[in-house]
Amino acid sequence: MKIYEIQALLERYFDKVELVGSSNVTIDGPAKIECAAKGNVSFVANEKYTRFIESTEASLLIVGEQTPTKQYSDSLSFLKVKDPYTAFVFVLQMFSSPRVIASDGVSPSAVIGENVMLGKNVSIGDHVVIGDHCVIGDNTVIGPNTVLMERVVTGRDCMFYPGVICYDGTILGDRVTIHSGTVLGADGFGFAPQPDGGYIKIPQMGIVEIHDDVEIGANNTIDRATMGSTVIEKGVKIDNLVQIAHNCRIGENTVIASQAGISGSVSIGKHCMIGGQAGFAGHLSLPDKTHVAAKAGVSKSLQKSAQTLRGIPAQPIRDQLRQEALLRSLDKMKRKLDALEEEVRQMQKGKGQQAEGKNT
Amino acid sequence: MKIYEIQALLERYFDKVELVGSSNVTIDGPAKIECAAKGNVSFVANEKYTRFIESTEASLLIVGEQTPTKQYSDSLSFLKVKDPYTAFVFVLQMFSSPRVIASDGVSPSAVIGENVMLGKNVSIGDHVVIGDHCVIGDNTVIGPNTVLMERVVTGRDCMFYPGVICYDGTILGDRVTIHSGTVLGADGFGFAPQPDGGYIKIPQMGIVEIHDDVEIGANNTIDRATMGSTVIEKGVKIDNLVQIAHNCRIGENTVIASQAGISGSVSIGKHCMIGGQAGFAGHLSLPDKTHVAAKAGVSKSLQKSAQTLRGIPAQPIRDQLRQEALLRSLDKMKRKLDALEEEVRQMQKGKGQQAEGKNT
Amino acid sequence: MKIYEIQALLERYFDKVELVGSSNVTIDGPAKIECAAKGNVSFVANEKYTRFIESTEASLLIVGEQTPTKQYSDSLSFLKVKDPYTAFVFVLQMFSSPRVIASDGVSPSAVIGENVMLGKNVSIGDHVVIGDHCVIGDNTVIGPNTVLMERVVTGRDCMFYPGVICYDGTILGDRVTIHSGTVLGADGFGFAPQPDGGYIKIPQMGIVEIHDDVEIGANNTIDRATMGSTVIEKGVKIDNLVQIAHNCRIGENTVIASQAGISGSVSIGKHCMIGGQAGFAGHLSLPDKTHVAAKAGVSKSLQKSAQTLRGIPAQPIRDQLRQEALLRSLDKMKRKLDALEEEVRQMQKGKGQQAEGKNT
Repeated sequence: MKIYEIQALLERYFDKVELVGSSNVTIDGPAKIECAAKGNVSFVANEKYTRFIESTEASLLIVGEQTPTKQYSDSLSFLKVKDPYTAFVFVLQMFSSPRVIASDGVSPSAVIGENVMLGKNVSIGDHVVIGDHCVIGDNTVIGPNTVLMERVVTGRDCMFYPGVICYDGTILGDRVTIHSGTVLGADGFGFAPQPDGGYIKIPQMGIVEIHDDVEIGANNTIDRATMGSTVIEKGVKIDNLVQIAHNCRIGENTVIASQAGISGSVSIGKHCMIGGQAGFAGHLSLPDKTHVAAKAGVSKSLQKSAQTLRGIPAQPIRDQLRQEALLRSLDKMKRKLDALEEEVRQMQKGKGQQAEGKNT
Repeated sequence: MKIYEIQALLERYFDKVELVGSSNVTIDGPAKIECAAKGNVSFVANEKYTRFIESTEASLLIVGEQTPTKQYSDSLSFLKVKDPYTAFVFVLQMFSSPRVIASDGVSPSAVIGENVMLGKNVSIGDHVVIGDHCVIGDNTVIGPNTVLMERVVTGRDCMFYPGVICYDGTILGDRVTIHSGTVLGADGFGFAPQPDGGYIKIPQMGIVEIHDDVEIGANNTIDRATMGSTVIEKGVKIDNLVQIAHNCRIGENTVIASQAGISGSVSIGKHCMIGGQAGFAGHLSLPDKTHVAAKAGVSKSLQKSAQTLRGIPAQPIRDQLRQEALLRSLDKMKRKLDALEEEVRQMQKGKGQQAEGKNT
Repeated sequence: MKIYEIQALLERYFDKVELVGSSNVTIDGPAKIECAAKGNVSFVANEKYTRFIESTEASLLIVGEQTPTKQYSDSLSFLKVKDPYTAFVFVLQMFSSPRVIASDGVSPSAVIGENVMLGKNVSIGDHVVIGDHCVIGDNTVIGPNTVLMERVVTGRDCMFYPGVICYDGTILGDRVTIHSGTVLGADGFGFAPQPDGGYIKIPQMGIVEIHDDVEIGANNTIDRATMGSTVIEKGVKIDNLVQIAHNCRIGENTVIASQAGISGSVSIGKHCMIGGQAGFAGHLSLPDKTHVAAKAGVSKSLQKSAQTLRGIPAQPIRDQLRQEALLRSLDKMKRKLDALEEEVRQMQKGKGQQAEGKNT
C-alpha cells in the first residue's frame, strides 16, 4: 500500500490530512514507533513519544497537526491530522485481515433446532447448537462449539466467537460481538432462605438484552433478570471475566474493565468508565459519566454525574487521595503526637517545680 | 390461573392464607410491584415497598399478615401469609415453564464412553462427551457441549447446563445444578520450587465431591484435591466466577457470591455467607454462620461462630467500621494536632516571655 | 510397590537416601500424614507436622535428614532425604496414573481444517475443531470440545484439557498444559473514544506466545497483543480465573495465583510471585523476584528487585504493615490526642487563673 492510499483513506474521516515527505513510498504494515522497521507506519499521539521520532526506522508516521516534522530524514514521511490516534486505528483496520470464525453457510456438524430462522449470509460453525425458535440475523457469524439455547434472537452482523453460551430467550441487537467462554443469561443468584437454614431457588424468569454495537470480552457472566431484563445498552464495551448480575442496566457507551463485579439490580449511567476489579453493592445507581477507579468498592448510589470514585468503600477521588496521603503520614502524626505529649508533660513538671519553687 | 388456585398452592406451604378481595380473577403472570399491569401478581415483603400498593396496577398482591389491606381499590386482591417473599417464590415457580436444556434421550451427536451407566430418563444433549466408567443418575439432564471426563458419577435429578467441564473422578450428589462454563476438578495449583528457580508439578490425585442440592453458577472453577477431596457440602449455593482451590471444604447451606476466591485447604463452616470479591488466605478455617463482607481479605482463622468480618485484612465488622470512621476523621485529627502543637508552642513562648519578664 | 522401589526412585534424584526400618514392606498409595492408614506413604517437610509422626498409621514416611526417627514403632519405616517435600512429589508421580484426556489418534467427530500439520502420536478428542494452517507437535493431546482457530502452532507434548479456546495465530512451546475453559488470544480491550461518546474498535493484530513448560489453569483469559505479542515466558505457572491483558510479558518461572488481573502492557520479571486477586495498573514493570501479596493494587513500576509489595495502593510490605499497625492503633491515638487537648486546656485555664490571681 502506498502512502497516498493511506492519505486517501484518512481524508474520508478527517477534513485535513497534510502530507510531509514523499507519497509514493510502499507501506507494508503497522508497528509501534519504537519497534518499527523500514516500510512500517506508526504514530505519535502523545508528547511522551515524540522523542522516538528522531530514531524510528518507520517510513511513515501519523502525527498531530502541531507536531514539528521538518527536521527529520528524507526516508521518513508524515501525515498530519487532528486526531492521530484514531487515524492510526483506521490504518490498522486497513491492514488487518478479517478473522475466519466460521466458514460460510451452516456446518454439517452444527445442530439446528426447529423453527429456527436463519438470515441471509450467516455462518454457523462446527458443532454449534442452536435451540428451537432462535432467530439469527443476516451476516451473523457463530463460531464453533457455541450454544444458543431456545428462543435466542440476534440482530444482523453479530459475531459469536467459539464456545459462547447463550441461555434461552437472550436478545441481541445488531453488530454485537461476544468473545469465547462468555455466558449470557445464566440464572441470577437468587435463593430464599428457609427456617431450616436451607434455601429455595427463586425462578429466574427474565432475560438478558444486549443492544446494538456492544462488544463483550471472554469468560464474562451476564445473568438473566429474575423478572424483566438485564440490559446492556448500545455501544457498551466489556473486558474479560466481568460479572454482571441479574436485573442490572448498563448505560450507553459505558466501558467496564476486567474482573469488575456488578451486583444485582445495579443501574450504571451512560458514558461511565468502570475500572478493573471494581465491585458494586446491590441495588445502587450511578449517574452518567461516573468514573470508578480500579479495585474501588462502590457501596452507595451517587446523585451528581461525572464524578470519579476511588477506594473501599469508594468516595470521591479527591477525598480518597487526601485520605491516602494522610494515611501515609500517619507515622509522622504519631511521632508528633508523642513528642507533644512529652512536651506537655515537661511543661507540667516545670510548672509543678515552679509551683514548688514558689512554696519554698 | 385464578386467584383461588394460587391460594390453594400457598395453602400447601402455609398454615394460614387469608384472601382479601375476589378469588375468581385471572392472573397471567408475575411482575415487580412498580412495573405490574392488570392481571399480574406481585408481592410486598419489605416495608419500603408498601408505598407502591396505592399505585400498583397489579391484580393480586402477596403480603404479610400484618399489612393493612382494607383501603385499596376493588380491582386489587390480597393473599396474606406469614412469609410473603417465600410465598411469591412459589408463585414464580408456578408460572415458570421448565427450561429445555437437552431433549429426552441421548443425542446422536453425543459420544458416550465405555462402561457408562445411564440412569432412567436421562437427557444427553448434542455434542456431549461422557468418558469411560461414568455413572449418570436418573432424570439427569446434560446440556449440549458439556464434557464429563472418566469416572464422573452424578446422582439423580442433576442438571448440567451447556458447556460444563467435569474432570475425571468428580462425584455429584442428587439435585445438583451446574451452570455453563464451570470447570469442576481441574488440577489444584501445586508446584514444588526447585533450586534452579523452576517448579515441578505436584500430581493432583484427589477429586471434587459435590453433595446434594448444590447449585453452582457460571464460569466457576473448583479444583480437585491434591489427595482426598475438595468438598462442597449439601445445599451450598455458589454464584459466578468463584474460585475454590484444592482441598477446600465448604459447609452445608453456605452461600458464596460472585468472584470470591477461596485459597487451598480453607474450611468454611455451615450457614456462612461469603460476599462478592472476598478473598481467603490458605489453610484457614471459619466457624458456622460466619458472614464475610464483600471485598474482605480474610487472613486468619476464626474461633467464634456467627461473626461478621469486613476489611483488608478482615476483622470483626464493629472494629472495621470504627476504623473506617476514624480514617474518615483523620483530616480533623491532623488539624486538631497541628492546632494543639501551635498552642503548646505559644504557651512555651508565653512562659519564656514570662520568665524573661521576671528577670528584668 | 515395595519401599526399596521407592528408595531406588528417590536415589535417581537425591545423592543420599537413608532408609530406617524395613525395605520390603508393600506401599499401596500416598496420603496426608494425619489421614494415612497402613500401607500408605506420607511425608513431613515442616516441623509443625512432626507431632503427627507418633500417631500416624502410615507404613512409610519421607522425612528430612535431621528428623529423629529412632523412637517410633517397628511398623513405621523412614526414608531420609534433603528435600522431603520434593521427594514426596516424585512419590506422588509414581502413584498417579496418567489421565485420559483424549484417545490416541484423531476422533471421527473432530473437524480438522486445511493444511493442518499433525505431529506423530497426537490425540485429538471428540468434537475438537482445528482451523486451517494449524501445526500440532508430536505427542500433543487435545481434549474434547477444544477449539483451535486458524494458524495455531503448538510444540510437542502439549496438553489441552476439554473446552479450551485458542484464537488464531496463538503460538505454544513444548510441554505446555492448558486447563479447561481458558481462552488464549481473544482481542485486547482497545477502543478509541470518539467525539460523539462512542468508541471505534482498535484492531488487535498481534498474537499470544506461550513458551515451554508453562501451565495455565482453568477459565483464564490471556489476550492477544494489539501489535506484536503477549508473551508468557518459559516455566510460568498460572492458577484459575486470571486476566492477562494485551501486550503483557510475564517473565520466566513467575507464578500467578487465582483471580489476579494484569492490565495492558505490564511487564513482570522472572521468578516473581503474584498473589490472588492482586491487580496491576497498565504499562508498569516489575523487576525479577518481586512478590506481590494477595489483593494488592500495584500502581507503579518498581526498580529494585526482590521486594514484596502489599496494600492498595501497593507499597513495600514493611511500610504497609507499619501502616496497618498504625491504623489499628488509630483509636488509641485519637484518645491520646483528646486527652492531651483537654490537658492543655486545663493548663491554659490554670495559667489564666494564675494570671487572674496575680492581678488581684
